[in-house]
Amino acid sequence: MLNALAIEDAVKAALQEDLGRAGDITTLATIPASARAHAVLAARQDGVIAGSEIAIAAFRMMDASVRFDTHVADGSPVTKGDVVLAVEGPARAILSAERVALNYMGRLSGIASLTALYVKAVAHTKARIVCTRKTTPGLRAFEKYAVRCGGGFNHRFGLDDAILIKDNHIAVAGGIVPALRAVKASIGHLVKIEIEVDTLAQLDEVLSEGADVVLLDNMTPQMLKEAVRRVNGTMLSEASGGVTLETVASIAESGVDMISVGALTHSAKVLDLGLDIGVN
Amino acid sequence: MLNALAIEDAVKAALQEDLGRAGDITTLATIPASARAHAVLAARQDGVIAGSEIAIAAFRMMDASVRFDTHVADGSPVTKGDVVLAVEGPARAILSAERVALNYMGRLSGIASLTALYVKAVAHTKARIVCTRKTTPGLRAFEKYAVRCGGGFNHRFGLDDAILIKDNHIAVAGGIVPALRAVKASIGHLVKIEIEVDTLAQLDEVLSEGADVVLLDNMTPQMLKEAVRRVNGTMLSEASGGVTLETVASIAESGVDMISVGALTHSAKVLDLGLDIGVN
Amino acid sequence: MLNALAIEDAVKAALQEDLGRAGDITTLATIPASARAHAVLAARQDGVIAGSEIAIAAFRMMDASVRFDTHVADGSPVTKGDVVLAVEGPARAILSAERVALNYMGRLSGIASLTALYVKAVAHTKARIVCTRKTTPGLRAFEKYAVRCGGGFNHRFGLDDAILIKDNHIAVAGGIVPALRAVKASIGHLVKIEIEVDTLAQLDEVLSEGADVVLLDNMTPQMLKEAVRRVNGTMLSEASGGVTLETVASIAESGVDMISVGALTHSAKVLDLGLDIGVN
Amino acid sequence: MLNALAIEDAVKAALQEDLGRAGDITTLATIPASARAHAVLAARQDGVIAGSEIAIAAFRMMDASVRFDTHVADGSPVTKGDVVLAVEGPARAILSAERVALNYMGRLSGIASLTALYVKAVAHTKARIVCTRKTTPGLRAFEKYAVRCGGGFNHRFGLDDAILIKDNHIAVAGGIVPALRAVKASIGHLVKIEIEVDTLAQLDEVLSEGADVVLLDNMTPQMLKEAVRRVNGTMLSEASGGVTLETVASIAESGVDMISVGALTHSAKVLDLGLDIGVN
Amino acid sequence: MLNALAIEDAVKAALQEDLGRAGDITTLATIPASARAHAVLAARQDGVIAGSEIAIAAFRMMDASVRFDTHVADGSPVTKGDVVLAVEGPARAILSAERVALNYMGRLSGIASLTALYVKAVAHTKARIVCTRKTTPGLRAFEKYAVRCGGGFNHRFGLDDAILIKDNHIAVAGGIVPALRAVKASIGHLVKIEIEVDTLAQLDEVLSEGADVVLLDNMTPQMLKEAVRRVNGTMLSEASGGVTLETVASIAESGVDMISVGALTHSAKVLDLGLDIGVN
Amino acid sequence: MLNALAIEDAVKAALQEDLGRAGDITTLATIPASARAHAVLAARQDGVIAGSEIAIAAFRMMDASVRFDTHVADGSPVTKGDVVLAVEGPARAILSAERVALNYMGRLSGIASLTALYVKAVAHTKARIVCTRKTTPGLRAFEKYAVRCGGGFNHRFGLDDAILIKDNHIAVAGGIVPALRAVKASIGHLVKIEIEVDTLAQLDEVLSEGADVVLLDNMTPQMLKEAVRRVNGTMLSEASGGVTLETVASIAESGVDMISVGALTHSAKVLDLGLDIGVN
Repeated sequence: MLNALAIEDAVKAALQEDLGRAGDITTLATIPASARAHAVLAARQDGVIAGSEIAIAAFRMMDASVRFDTHVADGSPVTKGDVVLAVEGPARAILSAERVALNYMGRLSGIASLTALYVKAVAHTKARIVCTRKTTPGLRAFEKYAVRCGGGFNHRFGLDDAILIKDNHIAVAGGIVPALRAVKASIGHLVKIEIEVDTLAQLDEVLSEGADVVLLDNMTPQMLKEAVRRVNGTMLSEASGGVTLETVASIAESGVDMISVGALTHSAKVLDLGLDIGVN
Repeated sequence: MLNALAIEDAVKAALQEDLGRAGDITTLATIPASARAHAVLAARQDGVIAGSEIAIAAFRMMDASVRFDTHVADGSPVTKGDVVLAVEGPARAILSAERVALNYMGRLSGIASLTALYVKAVAHTKARIVCTRKTTPGLRAFEKYAVRCGGGFNHRFGLDDAILIKDNHIAVAGGIVPALRAVKASIGHLVKIEIEVDTLAQLDEVLSEGADVVLLDNMTPQMLKEAVRRVNGTMLSEASGGVTLETVASIAESGVDMISVGALTHSAKVLDLGLDIGVN
Repeated sequence: MLNALAIEDAVKAALQEDLGRAGDITTLATIPASARAHAVLAARQDGVIAGSEIAIAAFRMMDASVRFDTHVADGSPVTKGDVVLAVEGPARAILSAERVALNYMGRLSGIASLTALYVKAVAHTKARIVCTRKTTPGLRAFEKYAVRCGGGFNHRFGLDDAILIKDNHIAVAGGIVPALRAVKASIGHLVKIEIEVDTLAQLDEVLSEGADVVLLDNMTPQMLKEAVRRVNGTMLSEASGGVTLETVASIAESGVDMISVGALTHSAKVLDLGLDIGVN
Repeated sequence: MLNALAIEDAVKAALQEDLGRAGDITTLATIPASARAHAVLAARQDGVIAGSEIAIAAFRMMDASVRFDTHVADGSPVTKGDVVLAVEGPARAILSAERVALNYMGRLSGIASLTALYVKAVAHTKARIVCTRKTTPGLRAFEKYAVRCGGGFNHRFGLDDAILIKDNHIAVAGGIVPALRAVKASIGHLVKIEIEVDTLAQLDEVLSEGADVVLLDNMTPQMLKEAVRRVNGTMLSEASGGVTLETVASIAESGVDMISVGALTHSAKVLDLGLDIGVN
Repeated sequence: MLNALAIEDAVKAALQEDLGRAGDITTLATIPASARAHAVLAARQDGVIAGSEIAIAAFRMMDASVRFDTHVADGSPVTKGDVVLAVEGPARAILSAERVALNYMGRLSGIASLTALYVKAVAHTKARIVCTRKTTPGLRAFEKYAVRCGGGFNHRFGLDDAILIKDNHIAVAGGIVPALRAVKASIGHLVKIEIEVDTLAQLDEVLSEGADVVLLDNMTPQMLKEAVRRVNGTMLSEASGGVTLETVASIAESGVDMISVGALTHSAKVLDLGLDIGVN
Repeated sequence: MLNALAIEDAVKAALQEDLGRAGDITTLATIPASARAHAVLAARQDGVIAGSEIAIAAFRMMDASVRFDTHVADGSPVTKGDVVLAVEGPARAILSAERVALNYMGRLSGIASLTALYVKAVAHTKARIVCTRKTTPGLRAFEKYAVRCGGGFNHRFGLDDAILIKDNHIAVAGGIVPALRAVKASIGHLVKIEIEVDTLAQLDEVLSEGADVVLLDNMTPQMLKEAVRRVNGTMLSEASGGVTLETVASIAESGVDMISVGALTHSAKVLDLGLDIGVN
């Protein structure tokens, strides 16, 4: 479930971006204020739905009297042709909010659908598919929600809610051990620590010093398997780097706990959704 | 060139989204305030660059003393390995702004790169590739700019800057002729009128009544050719509907003036860019 | 009809400007929370009404239970003494919102009323009266709406929704022809092009190169008549420069399509409206 | 002197209103980024200047490198043809900010100029010309500043910074005495109290109960003279209601301390200012 | 009564600060959307209540269907154990808004409670207890309201609503008399003037020149008594400087009109309030 | 180190709150624009400093030419009379920003100073002093920073960055084990889990199911000692509930890892800081 306050602000900004200074001049010129319409938002391809609350908020913000009937809940699969949402209300409101509703929902459903493919590909393993911070500026919370709708799990939401020590941090701090110690000396007790390693030697250093999660970057499945053996359940292990739908299963079979996939949010195609409007 | 005021607001919001309440806690714990770094933002695949000003603004907003050297201008092609931008300044600022800079620039360069492929595919014709309003909420002006970087042209920026009469408007207005007349009676003299038609019969009605542009929706190349013949240069013609890199050339060869492609903005993959940081 | 989202933001800002930090301290001290009032917003001079929705929004934002009865729709004429709007609700809300409601509505009705005078003066010709970008900062969309209420038409809403090439653009671009070509090479197909000329020689250049509209600046009625003859319907013609209620008819009789009048928005006097409040 | 923080926010909003989503597309298409220009902002009619800081901020916000030379300070008179401000910098910045700069400065100088006429008309008396809350929504602080530039004085800035008891407050509170007592019982020691009266009988009540200022509404000069006699310096007296340039002198000669004039801010015509640009 | 528009903005910002990007993840994971709860907000120590409207707004903003029953009005005393407010509605909304509601209400009630102690300590005199500008950034209007709930009165709300001439102003202006004259020459007729003095000699200067209020800073009760004698009712007198609950009575007995106490807002302890939740 | 973007927004809002519509009218009337001043911000009591960057930002936002010399860094102790910060620049800027600078810095230094007292009281144990979410609305990040300046550590920054399961969550979820399992099934791998227990029996349940941290609420030192014995290092332990400077040492001696103290942020008194201004 999404934060309703965040939805309100986002939808308002998106509508204002589309309405500009003069508003929907085509609709105002051709559709009487009294005209009413009904519409169905339907899937034009198979996938997983995410973002219905945002679409509803877009119509409602144009006119609070618009009514809805949700046929498919967020996180549920759809087949081409399925009706997701039925809408009824003033024709002007429905026509003017249509693009914003579809832009949000198509994008989020695209992310959910792609995530679901990755999740399915590793279903025979214990690995979780997780997202990254490679999200669209301004849409992070929504896109991370869409990943959850697709069966994935979330990584950090930002730079502030967990520690992730990368190679450059290690280089400046003078090594893995000093970097981990610097972090442990300053952070609060509810902040987890993850650290990135490129080699098994680095992994051994991490294991000796301790952390919550180790990020195994750009390792082959064989290396990952050895890394998992060495970790031996003492911390969580995450694989990352160039993961594709073709390679994800073999990576998962190494025994890692999580596989992070930037493409979920930075390269998902929109899910094709359409709004079929009938004027009452 | 992008509107600098818009860049400032967008980059600030994106940085705040990533920094959250507590800021970049990993960098603050491991990197001294006095450490300096240099970095190169380089292409990891072939494509077209867009968004350098935004990336620069992100680093500068973290620390006004960060310095830049732009190697590749927006709208220029890059080959895998090319350096796009060199950066030098406080290590904390560079590390903390890295993801925002890459998220914007990777996305916009992805759009520019995909646009360039479409543009190349129709280069033997007079057709222009144009974008749609199927953009990411909040990023419309940036994404439309990226389309121009890729050699494409822009369609409407919003509901307010041009008339586009679609099937539902026609249905409620009582037909093509009444819809066009209603619009002409109310709009200003600097607003263009485009109207969507699905059939050649509808096209004839539009031709008899007059408009600036006709949108030929979901027509086969053969139908488009006939439509272009009937239009005979009296207005501009735009083809739309299910355009792909495979079909775009044959559509263009029909003689239409513009081909609109929603995928440019709603389904472009990120262009893979990376920031290689060296600590001074 | 105005964009409801824009009204909400504008009215909220205006109320906050008036309420300041401590609110309406006179009303809070002298009027009990339970007191109710009715009021009529009436015209104290003849004119044309614009902005009722904004006035209503101001009262409603102070208290959602305020009720209304609109007697005169936006765009309609009023005679001194006519009731425009009847209001009933909590006395505190009505008293605290009164000034914001009147400030908006008086200003917009003043613009509509002045526009109506210009429109009437040219009613025997085909000329349209159009506004300019000489609007009050922050109120452009509202003021352009008021011009429409008065029977006028709108020019550009901003620098981004149409091309208007002026003398300085021409000078830097190296002449009328290069300026027009530069513009045509870059803009989208839904952007109209207008270009300003001061002489008939310049007009001939524009006619040879082509544009959507020519702005005939500071020409005498005689020059305008000759310009209209040369244009001969191949593009629209707009007259501008020092237009007054005294001169507008003779300008219109030259046969131009539009006459732009900055005074509509930059020098209209307020329409005198008053709120007569009765306490229940 | 204006509050610089307020100027920054206001100018940014005004520029964004004018630039819209796509920016100044005419200038971007015709003026190279490297072109520089100089310009003089000059008076095209006689008047008093107000708002130079705002105009300067508009140019500077488009490009921080724009340079200025102020020839006429705010509050000073100008004669037709006088140069007010010289500007030099990137041509794009000057062209794109021109309208916002002129819209603010023309409006504020118009208010200052009209105020100066009223001030001159009462210069032989002790009366101060004061403004009202009948200001443009969003511009109150700027417009009240313009009144001071014209030699006038300010009334309340909002509903929160002073008490002004009007007829409706008196009616609900049960009379002048209970209204004044209710107010005195609740307000802080730095809040002044003004009360409106329509008759001399009401004035006597106010005099017996005490207040800081009495507002003598819609009284003839003869009644005002008698009112001033009765007040006898025990509180300040303000005349209001239908004041014009023709009537203001006779009102002032009654001996009142202040005369408030709504027209200063709600019906001032713009002062005609122009920007003459020369491209370097 | 507080300004409802200000409450809405403040509560929204506070909820967003607490909810962050991902929202109340504990509640979302453990509480079903359908669960309902009732709760009582009760006092855990004696004091005076302030801020109920803000608490209510916090719950309502999470879910508009939350219902309330106010047992204790703002400004009323409570004894440990008293129920202040009963709440009923969706369990998620109540749990997620709890901390924001308590943070506002505890802080404001703390200020009201401390103010009430000072007011009681001087109840045998005519002195009013007044607050200062030493408030929490962003909460000034709320904190000044809380002072009124505790029986105190308000000083200036900001730098703009009254004149307060302090030692540095006097020093630069060249003395008390020039400072007072400079101020009187520029300010409006609804702005009061207060001036700070440290010695009786300075007081005499103020008395000779005239002002609305004199601020007697850091004087002993004896000095204050002499100051009051000299003022002799010709202006208001305010004592300030190091006032504590122990010293305030003797200061008040000097006969001053007001005593200003910074501690009311800068050092009040929270009033201990708790929310006892029962799940339906 | 604080987030500079957050400082800028907060300081701007605080200055606007104080400046209101008309600005610092006393300073504008009495201090010439050309006057310069120097000032020292000094401690008037012993304590620990926090917030210098915010104070500096306040002066700089009024005038970018103000210069500083920092004598005491954030997190350092001061003795009554110590100079913390020296300031030099335009007198108007220094006088107008003074109160905002002191309001922020006094409040944050008060929190740092109180935290330091708690930290000192438990210095002979391993216990960390941690803050809570009982912060001032709008100031959370600043107040948590102040806690770190005083030697304390931070708890959650909001509802979204860690799980804290409280009694009501347990009740609805059907017990400790189901609550923990529900949470583990949904949260990301970088989110820590803390759970509140009131009894040793509940603790045993938590220990059997597993969590990152257990919150031991309102237990006596004896119970805490037994709890720590049972936890035996398998997770972190936090004590909370009614902690005072008198009781904190005995609580710490129980062996808990953290002690959370709401009073650090909700009931700290301001640290008395003053600005002594000398006019150049």
